[in-house]
Amino acid sequence: MDIPKGFDIFPIGYVHSTLKERSGAPRQGWEGAPDARLKILPAFVEGLDGIQSGQDIWIFTWLHESQRSVLKVHPRGDVLNPMLGVFATRSPDRPNPIGLHRAKVLSVDADGRLHVQGLEAIDGTPVIDIKPVLERGSDS
Amino acid sequence: MDIPKGFDIFPIGYVHSTLKERSGAPRQGWEGAPDARLKILPAFVEGLDGIQSGQDIWIFTWLHESQRSVLKVHPRGDVLNPMLGVFATRSPDRPNPIGLHRAKVLSVDADGRLHVQGLEAIDGTPVIDIKPVLERGSDS
Repeated sequence: MDIPKGFDIFPIGYVHSTLKERSGAPRQGWEGAPDARLKILPAFVEGLDGIQSGQDIWIFTWLHESQRSVLKVHPRGDVLNPMLGVFATRSPDRPNPIGLHRAKVLSVDADGRLHVQGLEAIDGTPVIDIKPVLERGSDS
Repeated sequence: MDIPKGFDIFPIGYVHSTLKERSGAPRQGWEGAPDARLKILPAFVEGLDGIQSGQDIWIFTWLHESQRSVLKVHPRGDVLNPMLGVFATRSPDRPNPIGLHRAKVLSVDADGRLHVQGLEAIDGTPVIDIKPVLERGSDS
């Protein structure tokens, strides 16, 4: 494959969750996912300034257990679903395994601990970015 | 700074747009952004199978002109706005400069060309992932 030069992305923190294995994780946050904690690394804690309890955020993760060479999947892992391209699905297996999770902030503290409601990412998943959910247009 | 080992992310395609410079780009897709074309690289075209005209997708980009050492900004670049942490804003300047754009698919062809409505990314921006917008829960 003729792949152009890549970029280096690094963890800004990690997910701490009672979900320990991918096989036990819900497919989406609204499908019974537990509350979880994000621990943001000291070098990046300043970047949290202004995030408030009660607001909705986008959490971007690096789905580190994914298979990056996969381009077609049975949606939701069910062989009865016809195969689709990974970009038409939410499969964690994809060339750049970025997870996108919407969650409500329950609390945030000065040490970089964010408590969030309903996150389907497993324990130890690297967090790579956080953005506020905007109220109109592209987000809602 | 004590930063853990990173991950390699690579372009799956590029944005082709009439927007040529960051200074002329709208802040959000609904603020007058033009329609644009994504050209997905041949190695990844198979991953588009199942994407349909009229559906809404999330386009993930790598904001290659961003400053990655920035942790606080004046929102929307306006010094009258009090400084906030980058994770509380949509600033393109952030440790991992991932862009998140919601857009409607106008057309898609077998050669990996996706025509989308209202994209604020500038010409030449690398595309790193595409996901369908889901109709409930974490997306809507």
